[in-house]
This record gives sequence, structure tokens and C-alpha cells, in this order.
Amino acid sequence: MTDLASSEGRVPATDPTGADTAADNIGGSGGTTIAPEPYRLAEVPGPLSPDELADLDAWWRAANYLAVGQIYLTANPLLRTPLAAEHIKPRLLGHFGTVPGLNLVWAHANRAIRARDLDAVFVAGPGHGGPGPNACAWLEGTYSELYSNISRDGAGMGALFAQFSYPGGVPSHCAPETPGSFHEGGELGYSLLHAYGAALDHPDLTVFCVIGDGEAETGPLATSWHANKFLNPARDGAVLPILALNEYKIANPTLLARIPESELLSLLHGYGYDPIIVAGHDPAAVHQAMAAALDRSLDRIAEFQRAARESADGTRPRWPMIVLRTPKGWTCPPVVDGDQVEGTFRAHQVPLPAARSDDGHRRVLEQWLQSYRPAELFDEDGSPYPQLLRQVPAGPRRMSANPVANGGATMQDLRLPDWRRYGVEVPAPGATSHEATQVLGTWLRDVTAANRDNFLIFAPDELASNRLQDVLTVTGRNWQADIGEFDVKLDRRGRVIEVLSEHMCQGLLEGYLLTGRHGVFTCYEAFIHIVDAMFNQHAKWLDASSAVPWRRPVPSLNYLLTSHVWRQDHNGFTHQDPGFLDVVMNKQPSIVRVYLPPDANTLLSTYDHCLRSRHYVNVVVAGKQPQADWLSVDQARLHCARGAGIWEWAGHNDETGTTPDVVLACAGDVPTLETLAAAAILRERLPQLRIRVVNVVDLMRLLPADEHPHGLPDSEFDTLFTRDRPIIFAFHGYPWLIHRLTYRRTNHSGLHVRGYKEKGTTTTPFDMVMLNDLDRYHLVMDVIDRVPGLGTQAAGLRQDMADARLAARIWTREHGADIPEVADWRWPYGR
Amino acid sequence: MTDLASSEGRVPATDPTGADTAADNIGGSGGTTIAPEPYRLAEVPGPLSPDELADLDAWWRAANYLAVGQIYLTANPLLRTPLAAEHIKPRLLGHFGTVPGLNLVWAHANRAIRARDLDAVFVAGPGHGGPGPNACAWLEGTYSELYSNISRDGAGMGALFAQFSYPGGVPSHCAPETPGSFHEGGELGYSLLHAYGAALDHPDLTVFCVIGDGEAETGPLATSWHANKFLNPARDGAVLPILALNEYKIANPTLLARIPESELLSLLHGYGYDPIIVAGHDPAAVHQAMAAALDRSLDRIAEFQRAARESADGTRPRWPMIVLRTPKGWTCPPVVDGDQVEGTFRAHQVPLPAARSDDGHRRVLEQWLQSYRPAELFDEDGSPYPQLLRQVPAGPRRMSANPVANGGATMQDLRLPDWRRYGVEVPAPGATSHEATQVLGTWLRDVTAANRDNFLIFAPDELASNRLQDVLTVTGRNWQADIGEFDVKLDRRGRVIEVLSEHMCQGLLEGYLLTGRHGVFTCYEAFIHIVDAMFNQHAKWLDASSAVPWRRPVPSLNYLLTSHVWRQDHNGFTHQDPGFLDVVMNKQPSIVRVYLPPDANTLLSTYDHCLRSRHYVNVVVAGKQPQADWLSVDQARLHCARGAGIWEWAGHNDETGTTPDVVLACAGDVPTLETLAAAAILRERLPQLRIRVVNVVDLMRLLPADEHPHGLPDSEFDTLFTRDRPIIFAFHGYPWLIHRLTYRRTNHSGLHVRGYKEKGTTTTPFDMVMLNDLDRYHLVMDVIDRVPGLGTQAAGLRQDMADARLAARIWTREHGADIPEVADWRWPYGR
Repeated sequence: MTDLASSEGRVPATDPTGADTAADNIGGSGGTTIAPEPYRLAEVPGPLSPDELADLDAWWRAANYLAVGQIYLTANPLLRTPLAAEHIKPRLLGHFGTVPGLNLVWAHANRAIRARDLDAVFVAGPGHGGPGPNACAWLEGTYSELYSNISRDGAGMGALFAQFSYPGGVPSHCAPETPGSFHEGGELGYSLLHAYGAALDHPDLTVFCVIGDGEAETGPLATSWHANKFLNPARDGAVLPILALNEYKIANPTLLARIPESELLSLLHGYGYDPIIVAGHDPAAVHQAMAAALDRSLDRIAEFQRAARESADGTRPRWPMIVLRTPKGWTCPPVVDGDQVEGTFRAHQVPLPAARSDDGHRRVLEQWLQSYRPAELFDEDGSPYPQLLRQVPAGPRRMSANPVANGGATMQDLRLPDWRRYGVEVPAPGATSHEATQVLGTWLRDVTAANRDNFLIFAPDELASNRLQDVLTVTGRNWQADIGEFDVKLDRRGRVIEVLSEHMCQGLLEGYLLTGRHGVFTCYEAFIHIVDAMFNQHAKWLDASSAVPWRRPVPSLNYLLTSHVWRQDHNGFTHQDPGFLDVVMNKQPSIVRVYLPPDANTLLSTYDHCLRSRHYVNVVVAGKQPQADWLSVDQARLHCARGAGIWEWAGHNDETGTTPDVVLACAGDVPTLETLAAAAILRERLPQLRIRVVNVVDLMRLLPADEHPHGLPDSEFDTLFTRDRPIIFAFHGYPWLIHRLTYRRTNHSGLHVRGYKEKGTTTTPFDMVMLNDLDRYHLVMDVIDRVPGLGTQAAGLRQDMADARLAARIWTREHGADIPEVADWRWPYGR
Repeated sequence: MTDLASSEGRVPATDPTGADTAADNIGGSGGTTIAPEPYRLAEVPGPLSPDELADLDAWWRAANYLAVGQIYLTANPLLRTPLAAEHIKPRLLGHFGTVPGLNLVWAHANRAIRARDLDAVFVAGPGHGGPGPNACAWLEGTYSELYSNISRDGAGMGALFAQFSYPGGVPSHCAPETPGSFHEGGELGYSLLHAYGAALDHPDLTVFCVIGDGEAETGPLATSWHANKFLNPARDGAVLPILALNEYKIANPTLLARIPESELLSLLHGYGYDPIIVAGHDPAAVHQAMAAALDRSLDRIAEFQRAARESADGTRPRWPMIVLRTPKGWTCPPVVDGDQVEGTFRAHQVPLPAARSDDGHRRVLEQWLQSYRPAELFDEDGSPYPQLLRQVPAGPRRMSANPVANGGATMQDLRLPDWRRYGVEVPAPGATSHEATQVLGTWLRDVTAANRDNFLIFAPDELASNRLQDVLTVTGRNWQADIGEFDVKLDRRGRVIEVLSEHMCQGLLEGYLLTGRHGVFTCYEAFIHIVDAMFNQHAKWLDASSAVPWRRPVPSLNYLLTSHVWRQDHNGFTHQDPGFLDVVMNKQPSIVRVYLPPDANTLLSTYDHCLRSRHYVNVVVAGKQPQADWLSVDQARLHCARGAGIWEWAGHNDETGTTPDVVLACAGDVPTLETLAAAAILRERLPQLRIRVVNVVDLMRLLPADEHPHGLPDSEFDTLFTRDRPIIFAFHGYPWLIHRLTYRRTNHSGLHVRGYKEKGTTTTPFDMVMLNDLDRYHLVMDVIDRVPGLGTQAAGLRQDMADARLAARIWTREHGADIPEVADWRWPYGR
């Protein structure tokens, strides 16, 4: 902690520890429910005047009331009549435990927003406390602006309550439907990354990020504290992490609540923060402490930013953060049926589960609701009294209405240089070779240079390994930590973020995209599985938000997966996994796109398309090793626009209308190479066999037209792949993915797919494809086995192919490299 | 830090900071390579006598020499002739940067093992430094015992070098082939979890765990420091984490190396450790410091364990750990072609990449190898001199030969109570209901009680939520942190580990299994995707280790996935994802198993089978909500043994030989319920239609017999599913998975699958299945649409089904619950 904080960073509060105070509520009649005492605010020293304190507390009570109402009530929202069973929802769903903490932070953030004219957004890490942000958005009027049936009056309050966690209504956690939220409250672990992602390149933004102490146990959250090493006070906004230490998860205490406070402070200090503890049970004391903590934190942030912006880029500040230690389910009935509830795991979800069927529970619920004194908060019509309304910041200053949280609304298109100027010359197919990602890097370099405020590249220490090093000629790697004597290409204002955590890369990029900016995540193909779950959740967000009328499309999440399965031969089995494609394909077709460009120019064309697209997840897999160029710029443009097409020059120059004897299909750079090599062998050795080569760039073209917007109509599919000729499909990934995409097609029974079948080891590139029967020789054998009537000439060729494989295997073992006839092979026919 | 450490935890070394000392090597002739100076040990104060120092250093030099040899040499291992181009591998692969640190730790661990008769294993977090552990295993003789062609002499040394990262040889990282390793060195992040998993229930074991500072940036590693809150000094072994702070990753500095040392120490302290820093560049000084640090750490561990074992279980110790700050690529050529290499990211992989083609590089390589003075280390035959051999611990005390690292060798079978005694009475199909996982919990309770030393259950705060609460009647949750007043069921010796990190659950369990014990991981189905990548790597380990003759099968990794996609209706879209099955199905068929038991008794039978199995990953998906019981204990036993079978009582009582008009197939509890309800409607409304109900428990039965050991032969598949009748398959997961498994089957064209298609929301159970067209009414409509010639009666029924769906939808919206005709439905026909 810095000198601004007291020796332990603790802001004085009359009632210092949440853990102890929870105990105050015990006792009384064991075996029965105990209702909360209506509390009155005491005068406590602190920055808040009595009026301010009363206002803040009124907001907090109102938001808590509205949250309890959402969980329990389907009618009688203002308790104008005694609470009856039919007013209670038949199925009680939702989480109260974290709500009072979220509402407290929101109320205090509003005070700061008004006082400082802050441009602020709110991230609810304990997102299952959805009733809290819903309540605040309703109080701010945003809910009613976005959903006309949820008016800011008694009728709207009733509708707000009734829709919550109800069929056809809204989820119990923060979701795309939640005004002001750009963070889903389902899967835990990503709140702080989303917060930092939002703050990058938003110099005037403040992100209040509440982190649950349960969420804090996850791996992604545990490392994401270090995101402060990538936040530049001069050019980025600020994140104020608020660790909501309410001590319990669903059924267990949290780790961070059960280590000595000195250890917790040490940990947070070690993460680079200056923690301030706000702890207590008595609302007045906590309000005063929270107000003081927030004032001090925001003063400090402003000071860091001013200093950084007035001088040259300097060192990383020790950013403030708040530890908010209050009881779980704060203000709920302390004891229910003899068990302590407030301040324990029992307050996690619904504190009075039998409120509909049990008269005792229902009476306590009514007392609980009345303890917030709704009559003081809402007028005759059920509208909030001015005491609440005057706390609402103006227009877009409301966190529930900040356009940053509806990223598509603020998005600026990228300035994209014409990719064709970066294309490679291709005098003839296969005559030249390039590292495809290196070529892409020259274009990404200029994309980076042209969009210095809204485009970032993320990589887990793999940018240069993935051959995007040209980007580093116009920028460095963002780095706010210390810089060592031999460190290179680090830059306080770098446009590349490299950290050895796929979770951090993904989470920061998600936060950046969801707040309206653009980016690329480049990663080794095998290790992108580390963020499978994050991808799933992001895809679900995009899907669900498409159905929310006021949400605008956000920039796509663009992956560049390289160091792929077929060129991890030297790194071996652990680095070989193309299965991310299978994970991606399970998500909504309207959201996901998978591209397998076979060479440098097609990769350029594909990526240009991706950076122009919106609201998709684009997965692009491409090699980083030198690989033959097949298509010129113009050909690549046409081929990528088609997504899949016949390479006339590679097979017999058939018209689409004529039917070949066999189709050699391919998707992915290595499978394309092997397919072309097989085609060359067949053309030479079996000249009477009419072959067609089909290359697929856009995997979605294979799906039926009624299952994906890119899906080829059956007639077009049949035209490409024939209705009845054998198809030998060489595929980049697991072979059954192609079957899953095409099982409804006319000629599916003629389809034979070669791909990766978990046969890997430390070896050479060609040996890898041989291990999985994807090599040219095996593809030729597949053709011979499947095309009827080829005769003895084919039998001889089949034997030659088997011999060639054996020779290649032996050469590899003897020389540690691929046999020259493979390594030096070139396409022999021209265009 | 504790009082045992100096004020900064630093052990004095003559050359205190790695960062500074790296600079010592700069200068000289820029633009040329610079060879390392052969160093001589200075006398430095410390615990090591001159002889001990010389011995340790000799080991370290030998291991470093052997590592460099592995990376570069294909011949001339002892440099008996001048190094020529043909002695160098054509493709230089491997990572030297981390090797000297690994070898240093190994050498010093050996000293401690001998002095203290420690039972110890080694975890190499920077596992890509595979040459290090390979070298140490060779020096210890283990390599030669396990691989007779790698003798401990010059010939064997040559073979050791030649095989490294070479086709047909061993991977460049620690792998199943590596003696003494139970941790794969491919994907980073799991070393510390594996170490803690190994230490659990191994009271006499010490795990030396080296963590790379790159790896330390990952999420899983960042949270896994907290695993010390689950390690009981009385009944578990010890983990000594050694953070290898060599400051660089592939291309970037590491975060932990670029924060002030005080911040790093604060962080580690906050994680609950007492860090000791060992830093330097001068080998003698580092040896002395490392020896002192290790002595102090091991003294401290012994003290904690003695105190805990002599008294009642007490509080969590502040365990020691070591920060080893030495240069990356320590002892390699300091400058190559004018660039600083030693002590920078350039030493990450191969410091002299042109050693084969460039005479200058090759000369420097030779000087580098000679700087280790091999003539002092290896005799005429190339065998290690006694100075090295006397450091080798005896037999299984060698870390390369510890049977704990070959878990199958030490495994004890579980004592499993007869599951049939825990089965539920099923007087008639569907007459009763149970929570399947609750029933399983009664059996797991007794499994836990009967195996208190080698069986653990892991859950991310979901044990009780997943209805396994009965386990908590015989044990508590393992918890070594503080215990609060309202915490329940925490126990210093608990046999359940709950922490809100799927990564920790998975990683600890992996470490536990790989060292020969048994366990279960129960998790919400959707969130198991969080560990997709860990599952992939574990499956690859199992697969690869099957091919290593001396590796013994280890206990299976058993998942119990519940709170599944169909009963997350109230939690909504984010909690709905059955795609883990697709990830699992991509792995080697010999390793993976997927089970979908439809009721309580089949779940019991399945899980009994899983806990008896070895070397698999068993994925079991089962519901936790009350669900109809279908099969008696005896029926369940038979059905599970078959894996898939006809439920004669549910369809028309056909003989297998007769052919029904339609097959209703199902897999999963909710799909089974809907299928039976559809069957009941069809039997009543279309009595002339002969239907067959087939239930699939073991998904692998659907695969062709030549693709999976469980795969049904085509003839049996055809007997079950018919060769030509429509099959309506109601499936738990994404529907295309069934197509992918069955596309080669005779009747695939007759197969129509209903499953989850990413249509989810917050709603009721039946509304969820309706959203995805998996409901009884839609299944009946599917039958009518696919069975020809049903006539007008069917048309009327089709309309009724559409009306019934609409009524159910409207009811749901009005009542927030399922329509009674569905909610209260019971199987009407008996057995």
C-alpha cells in the first residue's frame, strides 16, 4: 500500500469485520425464522453529510427491495395488500447473497460519477446477482427506455419482478438483456479481464469491476490481476477492482476469506495494487467507509493519470483497489428455521425457499421487504421519489446507459489498406513459396499503424514465433512493468499485448471487442483449447445479444491459429490438436465462421474479410512455414468469395458440367499440398483417369443451406462434388468433422475423408501426414481403392505408392528429415 | 516470510542478481560468437565442503553437457575427434534455456535425498527442458535399465543424443518416455497442481516442483499456489515449489521478473509461502546458496510435519519455497553474432542455430561443450566417473526411478462395496423417482469410507449442489485454511476437495491418479469445458504412455457431469453446453469412454465399472433432479453390460428377429423420458404401429467395431436398429455427434437425431426440450413424418401433438412451471 493508505489500508468503520458482525444476529428463537430489524442510520464520521448518507442509503434500500422483489414476487410489488401465497412465484430462482454488495457499489459509484462527471461502466463479476444491476437500471430509468413494458412505476415494477428468471423473461444473471452490462454472469472468472479490456484505449473511462471472492479462486481470475502491467495511465482508462469478500460460495467459505488479512493484503500488494479495506455490517458505517475509500481511490487514479499525461510515459502506478468485506445476503433474515443465514453460504441463493407454501416464511419475507421501507422510496404510483431520482447521473453518464457497454453503438470501422497490395506474385501454381502468416504480418503491420486507437493484437508470447514479426516494425509490445537491459520491442504504447496466458489474451480481447474496438488473437492451434469455455461463452453472448433489439453488432472475434497440427511434428503429440474447430462448429451457425486458407494470398483475402465482419467468431487456421503459393491475388479473391471451388488447373480441365471419375477435395494448407501432389501423380501415372480438385476455404460452405448462411445449396454442392463419384477429402482436422457437415448431402456415401486421427509423435512433416494416412501416396491409394475398373496399371501404381511410403519412412529415420522427392517437390504442370 | 528466513528471505550469494550478472558477459567482439570461459569453482562460504561442492558441480556440468549433446549431436558424443558438420543434427530442435536450472535443482535434490533418505519425485514445470531430466536419468542409470539400447557408456550416450527430438526418438520435452516423470512438458500451467496431487495421501513423499516463470503467467498456475490450503502436514507429503525465475519466455521477459523483488516476495507471501531467494550467475556461489536454501526448506518441512504428526491437526504451515533467479541459458555462449544470448530470450531454444552449416558456430559449440570438461566426467568408455556415480541415490530413491512416478506400479485396487445393495427398488418402470446422483452418493459415501488413503472426490463448490451430500456424512471437505464460525463440514482430513477452480480440481486429480490413486471429479456439465485442454493433454499422456513398456496402467480419470444441459433451464443459456462429449470423442478410442445412464440403477452400475477400470477417461453424464426409475438392479446390470439394448417392455414386445415399423432410440436421462412418453402416446394412438425402444448407455457402442473396442459389429447394430426402418434418436448432446458415430452404419440414411442445438434460455424443463424439438410431442411428429402409410389417423395425431406443444408453451408462460400432463406424467403400461 502507498502512503495514502493507513498502515493496513483500512478505512475506519465502526463495525470493522463482517465475520464478527454476522454473529450479532444469532440467537433468538432457534427453529423459527427471524426477520431483519428495520434499521435506522446512525451518524458516523466520514465524508458523507447526513443528507448524502440518507440519499445513498435510500438508493441502496430501494435497489435491495427491487432485487428481493424480482426473486420472490409475481404480483403485489408495492405490498399494498398483505402478502399472500399467490403473490409469490411458484419457482423461486435467483441469487440474493451478492446483491447488497453490488447495489452498494453501484450507489456509491453514482455519487462519484455525479461529483466527478465520470464516464464509467460497471462490471458485475458476481453476475448471478443479476437482480442488483436490473434494479439499478430500473431506478436510473434505462430499463424503461429500453423495454417499454417495464415502466418506471408500479406497473413496470410488477413487470420487472414478474419477468425475472421466468419463462420468456430475463436470466437470473447479468446477460445481454441487462442494460449497461457487457459481461455475462454465467461462467465465472473473466470479470477483471473484461474490465481491463474495456479500459484499454479508452483514456477517459473508469471501470468499476466487482470481483466475487468465489470467482477469485478461478485460474483466469487469479492471473488477471496482473493485467495492470498492460494498462498505461497516459493512454488507457482506469479499472477499480472491488473484491467483494462476502466469504462464501454455494456451500463453502472462500479461500481468500479464510487466510489472515495480512496475507490477503500481501497477495494483493504482490499483484501490484494498493488495497483499501472497507468492512462492516452496519450500513451507515459502511457507507461512510465506502465513500471515503472511493474518494481516495478515484483521487489516486486521477493523480496517476494526470501525472502520466503531463509527462513522458513512466512507470506503472500502484493502482488502488477496494476489498469490500460485508456479510453475504446482508440485510436478509439473519436466521431461518434455526440456521444462521445472513453472513453464510445459506444466503447464496433464496434465503426463504418456502415463502409460497409456508406462512411463516412468507410473513418473514414481508417483514424483510418492509425493512427497506418501500413507502419512503416509491410514491403512490410506484415511481421512485426524488430522493432516488436526484442520484441518477445524466443520460449516458448512467452506467446502465453508457454506450461503451453497447460496443456496437460506438464502434468505428477500421481503416484497412487494400490487401491486394500485400499479395505475393504467383507466376505459376507452386512455383514460389511463402510463410503465409509472415505475408499476413505485413498487412497487419499497416492495419496496426493505421488504427492506433482501436486495434490490438494479442498473443501468448507467440507473435514472432507465429511469424507476425513485421508488426513490430511499427509498434512494440505493450509493457508497463519494468524493462530489463536485454528486453527488446517493449513499448509503453505498444499495440501488441503478449502474455503467456491464453485466458488473459482472450479475456482482454473480449472486453476490448465488446466495448466497440477490433482485434486479433494469434495462438498455437493446439493450445487454443485452453479457452474453449471462454469461446463458448462469448459465442453465446453474441448469439443472445443478437436477439436484444437495442444491442448493436460488435466487431468479430478473430482467431489466427497457426503452428498447427501438421507442423508441430517436431514438438510432438502434445502440440497436435485441431479439435477447436469441432468446438466452434457446435455453436450457433449465425455466429461462427471457420476458414482454412491454403496459401498466402488466400490468407490475406480471408483476413481482410474477417476484419470487416461484425458479430462473428472467425477462426482462421494457416501455416507459418514456407508453403507453396497456389493462387494469384485475383484468383485468391475469387476463390475466397466462393468459399469452395474447383481448381481447374489442378485436375483435368473439365467444365463444371462434365463429370470426373474422382474428386480430390482438400481443406487446409498441408492437405492441399498433399492433394495436389497426389493429383500430379495420378495425372502422370493414370492419364486416363479424369480427376477434379476441389479446394474448400470456408468450411461452412459444406453445411446444408438451411443450416448455415454460407451453406451451399444441394444443387451447387452436387455440381462441385458430383452426385455419385468417389470423393477423397484431405482435411486439416479430425476427419469426422467433414462427415458431420456433409451427412445429408447426396453423395455422402461416396465421401472418404483423411485427417488427423490422434496419431502423432516427434517426427518430420511428411512423416506426420504419413502417420495419419493423409499423405500424397496414401491419397493415390485411396483413389485406386475407390474408383472401379482401373485395371492392372493401377495395381502397379498402388504397389509403387506403398513402396514410396516405405522409402520415405526409412529416409526420415536415417536422415532426420524428409526425403528430397517430397521436400523438394514442386507442382509440375503450370496453370 | 518466517523468522527462519532473513529479512528478505535471501540466501547470501557472492553474485546476488541474475539480471546484473548477465551483463557481465557483454562486450567483446560484437558481430561474432563468443564462447563461454571454462569456469573454475571458487571457494565460497556455505554449507558445502569443497568436495561436496566439486561433486555437485561435476554433476551439474555432466548433466548440462549431456543436455547440449542431446540438442546438437548425432555422433561423436565424447568429442574424441574434432567436431565436424556431420556430427551435428540436420535439424536442431530443443530448448536449452531452462536446462541448467533444472539440472541444478536435480543435483541438489540428490544431495538432500541421500542425506535425509528422502522419498522424492521431480516435477519439471518447464518441461520443454527435457534434455535435463533425460540427462539426470541417464546419469542415475535408470535410462539404461529401462531402455537397454541407451547404455550408461559412450555408445549409450551417443544413442541418447541421437534419439532426442528425432523421428522415432523421444520428444523434446518431458513425456511418458522420460524416466521419473509423471508430468508432461507440453502445455504449460499444471506443474504445481500435479505436484500437490502427488503429495496428497503420500505422507512420506517430497515433491520438488520446478515452475517456470513463463508458466507462472498462466491462469491455472496462478491459482494453483493456493493448493497449499489443501495439504495437511500430518497426513500428506510435502511440495517444495522452486520458481525458476530465468526472466524470459520465447520472446519476452516474464511478468514476475519485471516487478520489484519486494512485490514478488509479497505475492508469494500472499499465496501463503515463505520464499527464499537463490540468485546468481557464479556457479560456486549459487551452489552454496542453493544447498543452504534446500537445507533450510527441508528442515522446515520436516519440522512442520513432525509438529503436525505429534499433535492434533493444527493450522496451515507457511510452507517454504525457493525463488531460483539464474540466467536463462546459463553457461551457454554469452554472445552470438553480436547479440547477447545467455541471460536473454535468445537462449530459449537453440543458442547456435547454424552449428551444422557455420564453421564459426560449430567451433563455439565445441568450446561450449568442452567448457563442461567432459574428460573429467566420463571415462574412456564414456561411463560416468565415480565422482558422479556416488551422488546417485540408491534404487527407488533415485527420482528417475521412484515408483510413485509410475503410478500404476504402486496402485492398490479400491475396496468397492457391492453397488447392488445401494440400488433402488423399481416395482414397475417409471413407478418411482429418484435423484440419480443422490443414490450414487450413498455408494460413493461408502467407497469413501472404505478407502480413506487412496480415494478422493473433487468438486468446484458443487458437491452438495450435485446431490452427493451423503458423502459428507462420513467425511468433511479438506480445508487447511482458517475455519469460520458458520463454516460447516470442513475437516483437516476431509476426503473431498472443493475449490471454485475446475483447473485445480482437474490438475490435483491428475496428479493423484498419475501417482497411483483413485478419484472422481464432479462438475456442472457446461463448465467442464474449462478443462478441455487439460483433458486433452491427460488423454494424450494415457495414450502415449500405453506405448511405453515400463509404464503401468493408472486408475482412470472419472468425470461425473451433472446439472446438465436439459436441467439448466432456470440458469439459462450460459449453463447449457453438452459439447464436452464432442471434445472427448476426438481422442484415442482406446482411452475414452462416454456413458449416459438413464436412471439411478444404471448410474450405479456404470460408476462401479468406472472405478474398476484403468487407464481410461470415463465421462458419465447423469441428472441430479428427481427422475423416473426404469430398470431394476438386475436389469440395470444387464443393460449396462450390453451398453445398448432393446427395452422390450417399452415398445411392442417384439423378438429381436422381427422388424418394427420404427425405432425410437435414446441416450441420456431426459431424452429417455421423452422417448418413453412418445412411445406411450404412439402405443395408445397408433396401436397398429409397431415400435421398438432402444436405449444407449455406452455411447461407444455406436462406433464401428474396428474403430473402438466397444463398437458394435455391424450385424449387431443392424439387429438393434434395423437395416431400413426409420430411427428417431433422442440424444443428450449435439445431434451431429450421433451422425458422426454412425455414418458408416447400414441404416444411417434412416437415422434422424434430435438433440441440443444451442437453443436455450431461462425457462422450464419441458420448455427447454420443446425449444430443441426433443420433446415427446415432436418425437411423435417425427415418427409420423418418417413412417410411410400411416394414414389419416396419424394426421389427426400430428395435429394433436402440435396443439399439445402449443398448450404446454402457453401453460409455461402463464404458470412459470410445466403443464401438469407433462410434469405428472407416468409410464402407463407396466413392465
